Amino acid sequence: MIDNYEIIGLIAATLTTASFIPQVYKTWKTKDVSSLSLTMYLVFFTGIVLWLIYGIHLKSLAMIVSNIVTGILAIMLIVFKLVYTNNKN
Amino acid sequence: MIDNYEIIGLIAATLTTASFIPQVYKTWKTKDVSSLSLTMYLVFFTGIVLWLIYGIHLKSLAMIVSNIVTGILAIMLIVFKLVYTNNKN
Repeated sequence: MIDNYEIIGLIAATLTTASFIPQVYKTWKTKDVSSLSLTMYLVFFTGIVLWLIYGIHLKSLAMIVSNIVTGILAIMLIVFKLVYTNNKN
Repeated sequence: MIDNYEIIGLIAATLTTASFIPQVYKTWKTKDVSSLSLTMYLVFFTGIVLWLIYGIHLKSLAMIVSNIVTGILAIMLIVFKLVYTNNKN
């Protein structure tokens, strides 16, 4: 049975994952990457890969799904940062 | 005893938390917030508060500490975004 705290955990996972969608959308629309930190997203992505390994070990579907989605969104921001920075030069 | 997967979880928590430090530093130095999404950080912060509640329930020190630190860093970015956007107008 899923108790209230598990629901809080699932909502937490959904929110922290979904939070990157407006950043990806904003960056894709504006192509403005000047204030984004590449270091942040590289370190963050490495952490997400480890969270995914940990989630697979725990057999936690919420952790596996949310970290795969967050990882894809982080890769998109890394690619945007690299492509749009180079295009400017 | 802490097994290898718990160590992976702790490194994951450290990396995803620490990843926000270069963004905070960059934003503080440059005062450039043009490409940061306020929506991202508001949704993200809400998620972090729920992760903290979930971590307190699980009595997970790593989750509690990392979500408090990440929450503080997210608040700093929200404040920077609001202050530096207003200063520009």
